[in-house]
Amino acid sequence: MQIQAVIGSQCRRDWEHTDAATAEPVRIAAIGLGWYTRGRALPALADSDRCEPTVLVSGSAEKAERVAAEFEAVERTLTYDEYAEGIGTDAYDAVYVCTPNAFHLDHAAVAADHGKHVLCEKPIERDSGRAENLVGVCDDAGVEVMTAYRMHTEPTVRRAKELIDAGYVGDPVAVRGDMSQRLLKRVNPDPDQWRLNAELAGGGALFDIGLYPLNTARFLLDADPVAVAGTTGSTHDAFDAVEETVTCSLRFPGGVTAACFASHNARQSSSITVTGTEGQVRIEPAFFQDQDRKLELSRGDSRAEVAVERVDQMREEFDYFADRLRSGADIYPDGRHGVVDVEVMEAVYEAADRDTWVEV
Amino acid sequence: MQIQAVIGSQCRRDWEHTDAATAEPVRIAAIGLGWYTRGRALPALADSDRCEPTVLVSGSAEKAERVAAEFEAVERTLTYDEYAEGIGTDAYDAVYVCTPNAFHLDHAAVAADHGKHVLCEKPIERDSGRAENLVGVCDDAGVEVMTAYRMHTEPTVRRAKELIDAGYVGDPVAVRGDMSQRLLKRVNPDPDQWRLNAELAGGGALFDIGLYPLNTARFLLDADPVAVAGTTGSTHDAFDAVEETVTCSLRFPGGVTAACFASHNARQSSSITVTGTEGQVRIEPAFFQDQDRKLELSRGDSRAEVAVERVDQMREEFDYFADRLRSGADIYPDGRHGVVDVEVMEAVYEAADRDTWVEV
Repeated sequence: MQIQAVIGSQCRRDWEHTDAATAEPVRIAAIGLGWYTRGRALPALADSDRCEPTVLVSGSAEKAERVAAEFEAVERTLTYDEYAEGIGTDAYDAVYVCTPNAFHLDHAAVAADHGKHVLCEKPIERDSGRAENLVGVCDDAGVEVMTAYRMHTEPTVRRAKELIDAGYVGDPVAVRGDMSQRLLKRVNPDPDQWRLNAELAGGGALFDIGLYPLNTARFLLDADPVAVAGTTGSTHDAFDAVEETVTCSLRFPGGVTAACFASHNARQSSSITVTGTEGQVRIEPAFFQDQDRKLELSRGDSRAEVAVERVDQMREEFDYFADRLRSGADIYPDGRHGVVDVEVMEAVYEAADRDTWVEV
Repeated sequence: MQIQAVIGSQCRRDWEHTDAATAEPVRIAAIGLGWYTRGRALPALADSDRCEPTVLVSGSAEKAERVAAEFEAVERTLTYDEYAEGIGTDAYDAVYVCTPNAFHLDHAAVAADHGKHVLCEKPIERDSGRAENLVGVCDDAGVEVMTAYRMHTEPTVRRAKELIDAGYVGDPVAVRGDMSQRLLKRVNPDPDQWRLNAELAGGGALFDIGLYPLNTARFLLDADPVAVAGTTGSTHDAFDAVEETVTCSLRFPGGVTAACFASHNARQSSSITVTGTEGQVRIEPAFFQDQDRKLELSRGDSRAEVAVERVDQMREEFDYFADRLRSGADIYPDGRHGVVDVEVMEAVYEAADRDTWVEV
């Protein structure tokens, strides 16, 4: 069994196909300069050996200049119009799209038009029709699309998947995952933020954070749900257009089930557990950044807790993207992978509306 | 907040109304001498200051005699026929019914007929009709019925409930609970055991162990589910009549949801988590006996793990029953409480069959 690998060299990048020392860095244009791009993405890009944040694109030229002053690698800033016109295309190889979900398609289409690869924040779009279109325009233009999931390169999740793949839990039987936070109280008090706008976001807690347990369940099981049921609810006026809380059940092929819970109005929590015939793997905390990870393992009569080193999840994700572009190897969370999540989440909403199970 | 109470005097019996030193011990007739009665119930009764195992009732007179030899307090043994005929009724005050679920009603009816109180193992019967009848005959006879749940007097669960009641988690948002074991591989290899017989058991993993997270969710929330959805499945031939694995979702009043998972073919696991607007309480391991308990608490930015002393859960349960009989105080898990679980579990099966939500 792979226990040794979980304890030793936990953070090895087993996904690397190219050498960071010799691979040409990927020059990234960051589209959208909200707090996540400024506080998470740009610092990770600046820190990366495989990427460089060379271009910043924002609705506000002044804001773009201000942010650019903080990052040495930035060569130029663009307004959205300038970006759409193809100005400065020689300064970047790929784009990182971090805008409200409903703008992903348009920004990706521009990138595709200019022959630039796309790393697109999750969920890939606000609905599955637009998500399909996004993938279609990129396919037609021959550019790569990756959906920006942090979990596939998070070492704790990767080691958990290795253990599961190696048979540590036996046959998986059930997955439980959850992610919750106080969005308005702890993250962003603005009741007019785009995450609460159905047109811009597509959904509420499920689209924003429920996606983590859902997508990580898919990754750990290496399978996609075939049917879903769910319940959504809101207690706060700000959540009149999108759900505050969601609970959903997923049926996977072979009878494996998953239960996911997400809430924008519950104390921060995040975990994912896979129970199998022989053992169990649990990660907690699982999904938020900047937290020490713990992998809880049990099999037969033995039980262990493994602390896993903290990494910059965004840097891992960007480096994976760059490695894939430079090596030409398949991207695991490609555009189609991202579309499946949107389809599953739409099915959860339909299931919640109709009070029934819905096939995906 | 009650954190101090969780750390100090964890195992205090806050439910006691009478003094064990002065209360007359309750003389118990144990009905059914399977491994659980022999290995768990009788040692706990023998150890108790509040109860005495004075009578043993079994289908086999020889087995009853053999078991009686191990417990000093036993005054006499009875066959089921002798028990039904009312022989030896002066030697016991109450019965503890630990037989296949489908026999609970008949044994309870005999007890009621003789004016004896009933402590009946969970689930209270194999279906809600028989469960209602059981409660009815006891009510008519004026005898008490308690459903034998270990969790209401398990100190870890009790301290968790105190915290929740005192507002530690804020408003509860969601509960997740699970219980799994390898029934055939680790507990009892007999494919003909009554737990796998639909006529005798009423259901599979849900009736036997899924009941723990389900009932404990009810206890911790102090509420009953209003609607359920679920999925059942089996992979092993022995589980052709009852389900091997179940996943269910429960809707409680006020929008609180619970997700429960139980399997007779997954590595042993047991936990229950209540996430609220302000904090989270998790017990793990939660439901199996003879394990050290851990209460995981988080609220705001603080987080604590509290080890809770191990108690003999069966002794706590028996002593609670005896205290209630002697004090006349209300029994929390009374017969009606047990009927609700059977109704909820039947609704889960119906929901799984019909692929829809079912109101309870």
